[in-house]
Amino acid sequence: MAPLNVQLLLTGNELMTGDVTDTNSVVIAQALKEIGVEITKKVTIGDDISMLIAEIINLSHQANVLIINGGLGPTVDDLTAYALAKATNTELSFNIDAEEHLKRWSIEKGAELNKANLKQAMLPHNVTIIPNSIGSAVGFSVMLNQCKIYCTPGVPRELILMLGESIIPSLSKILPEQPSYIVRRFQVYGLGESNLQMLIDNNFPDWPSEIELGFRAKSPFVELKLTTRSGIGLKNLPLWVKKVQQLLGEHILAEINNDQRSMPEHVLALLAQNKLKITTAESCTGGLIASLLTSIANASSSFEAGFVTYSNQMKSELIDVNINTLEQNGAVSKEVVEEMACGALEKSGANIAIAVSGIAGPSGGSKEKPVGSVWIAWGSTNNLHSAYFCIKGNRQYFQQAVAYRALDLVRRFLLKTTEQPFYMKY
Amino acid sequence: MAPLNVQLLLTGNELMTGDVTDTNSVVIAQALKEIGVEITKKVTIGDDISMLIAEIINLSHQANVLIINGGLGPTVDDLTAYALAKATNTELSFNIDAEEHLKRWSIEKGAELNKANLKQAMLPHNVTIIPNSIGSAVGFSVMLNQCKIYCTPGVPRELILMLGESIIPSLSKILPEQPSYIVRRFQVYGLGESNLQMLIDNNFPDWPSEIELGFRAKSPFVELKLTTRSGIGLKNLPLWVKKVQQLLGEHILAEINNDQRSMPEHVLALLAQNKLKITTAESCTGGLIASLLTSIANASSSFEAGFVTYSNQMKSELIDVNINTLEQNGAVSKEVVEEMACGALEKSGANIAIAVSGIAGPSGGSKEKPVGSVWIAWGSTNNLHSAYFCIKGNRQYFQQAVAYRALDLVRRFLLKTTEQPFYMKY
Repeated sequence: MAPLNVQLLLTGNELMTGDVTDTNSVVIAQALKEIGVEITKKVTIGDDISMLIAEIINLSHQANVLIINGGLGPTVDDLTAYALAKATNTELSFNIDAEEHLKRWSIEKGAELNKANLKQAMLPHNVTIIPNSIGSAVGFSVMLNQCKIYCTPGVPRELILMLGESIIPSLSKILPEQPSYIVRRFQVYGLGESNLQMLIDNNFPDWPSEIELGFRAKSPFVELKLTTRSGIGLKNLPLWVKKVQQLLGEHILAEINNDQRSMPEHVLALLAQNKLKITTAESCTGGLIASLLTSIANASSSFEAGFVTYSNQMKSELIDVNINTLEQNGAVSKEVVEEMACGALEKSGANIAIAVSGIAGPSGGSKEKPVGSVWIAWGSTNNLHSAYFCIKGNRQYFQQAVAYRALDLVRRFLLKTTEQPFYMKY
Repeated sequence: MAPLNVQLLLTGNELMTGDVTDTNSVVIAQALKEIGVEITKKVTIGDDISMLIAEIINLSHQANVLIINGGLGPTVDDLTAYALAKATNTELSFNIDAEEHLKRWSIEKGAELNKANLKQAMLPHNVTIIPNSIGSAVGFSVMLNQCKIYCTPGVPRELILMLGESIIPSLSKILPEQPSYIVRRFQVYGLGESNLQMLIDNNFPDWPSEIELGFRAKSPFVELKLTTRSGIGLKNLPLWVKKVQQLLGEHILAEINNDQRSMPEHVLALLAQNKLKITTAESCTGGLIASLLTSIANASSSFEAGFVTYSNQMKSELIDVNINTLEQNGAVSKEVVEEMACGALEKSGANIAIAVSGIAGPSGGSKEKPVGSVWIAWGSTNNLHSAYFCIKGNRQYFQQAVAYRALDLVRRFLLKTTEQPFYMKY
């Protein structure tokens, strides 16, 4: 049986004018890749009804599966349902399932359903609804010229939900054969792409050609992929996975297929496991570390309080950093971050602290302490560590990098690992 | 004369697999926009010779101008020149201009020309070379079915150079007329797409057809666009812009063409202007509001300290919320957020406070206070306001929505506007 011919139709004026970079097709391609399917063609057009109708008919003749993205919203420039009706030679009519969905959605949101929203229940005849538990637009699927058409919303999180819950499972069922390749994916922290490649090249000059290495930077992580398609590769893959795991140690947060937890989730799980509470004392990250921790459900069992002490006076008044320590060493110093950590532990009653003080820029740097300088302290009152880093990049990059570095140091502390991370060696 | 119909053909397996996000078409669209030209259609396919030939022929029948991007490199998967030869019914032959270019390029690079590079001099007959002063691949243009085809390299900086030096100047010469459309874009906060559409529909039943409305959700904002292409539209646009501005009031943060500041930038600018300092007391947002403020350079001039008081005990110990207030009203209450705001003002010495307490979920809700409930307090000790909202969505959505709602309320407070925001009316 021939492989599925899957094509994509992306709609929206914003995709044509250079105002928006299309990332939805990347999301769709990645989801399809998981089931071994590749997209053969993508067509992108603006909100133009006659072009939409023509392309839908044209693509339905070429593809077995057509995924349409965009144009399901409540406004006048959302034309997908109408175009589908015209292309399938039917009319729009009121879809009871879609109306039910809209009613539920509006009740959950605590809002009245308005006329614009109700437009979203006007769908072509004979469509099958694709549920959307987080947005107003329902998706739908319909057959045309022996092509299965899925209509999906342009809002990325709604698209991702529909792909995962409905479209990928539905496509898996009509796949001609199972993919004959295996991918093992690992989330790596603390090493850049090129350093990771170098490390593997240098340590494994005999790397087997049947196991393909792939790297994808997803700041602040790198996703490392080992793919094999051949018989020998399938047999040897576990061995090479083990070698890579030994080489990278705790730089590997998890194998992505089994464990998709984020860095703060790892830290919170270790805290909960050890029945410990954490507090934060943040200067240059301005609340970002606390915000990352509390973005996770049930953070409250391990986190009760955090301090954003941006000025020197507040470091002193709120978490008892000695004025003399600040004057003698400056705010970005080992002595100050250690006192910040101790003060935060004292004031919050937590067991573990993270404290950071650095220069996020763009101004505020000096020759001795350039922009990007940061001191991080982590640990408990009796076992407090600290380290200096210089992290280059713009303000947002710096703040994110510092926050993840601090969380990784606490993670390693809680794991009681003696392994020296790569970013402290060089 | 009809406007140019410009279409794009993007090639490369990496664009189909989700490994790469297409930014070249954004670069091309933005360059074209400068001369008032919009792309009508983009087609993206992999490195498949028969599909390439078919698409080139097909698109040449539809478009006046076709820009092909990618596939000009030295490797076996670079097929554009060969596909063009087939589509134009000629053969590849050695192009002397292209060879000259390759020789110069290799001398500049101090490298030997290799066989793979020389493949780049094999081009269809009758092409016009497009110079490339920074890379090995020459571009070229050719006519097919009365469509002018430009072939450009996939390397972004080489593409940008060719657009600026050759393609845009060449297109400008064949443009039928000067750009005759104007777009005014506004950043709107506090109204969803459908409510915005309804509000405009209800208030302006006589909305002129020559002014096109566009909406784009960029959570937590909606971008509102007024576009016109016709003479009457150009004349009347300022009037209708003014009407929309009056209708939406402070829901419009700014006209995007003039002012791209983010919500925290607006708040910080108003604080600096009034020489005021702000503090934050956050429960359910866990540091996100402080983090948004401090993500902006020079936040330190208006922000010195923030409190993340996640547990009741910490609300009481760190910012003096009365234990009785907590016990009698619960943490998610008007009384508690107001005491949080006052406590944070007292402890930090700031003039303005934001305090939030709510139920981010997924657990922790009750019948009286469901997940999504939040109390926000804002203002100064003598002029403190508070309001209840119920915001549905997952945890991350809720936290972001609450943070922006709180910042918007402070922005309105600092603007001293008496306008009631839409989200407090319904």
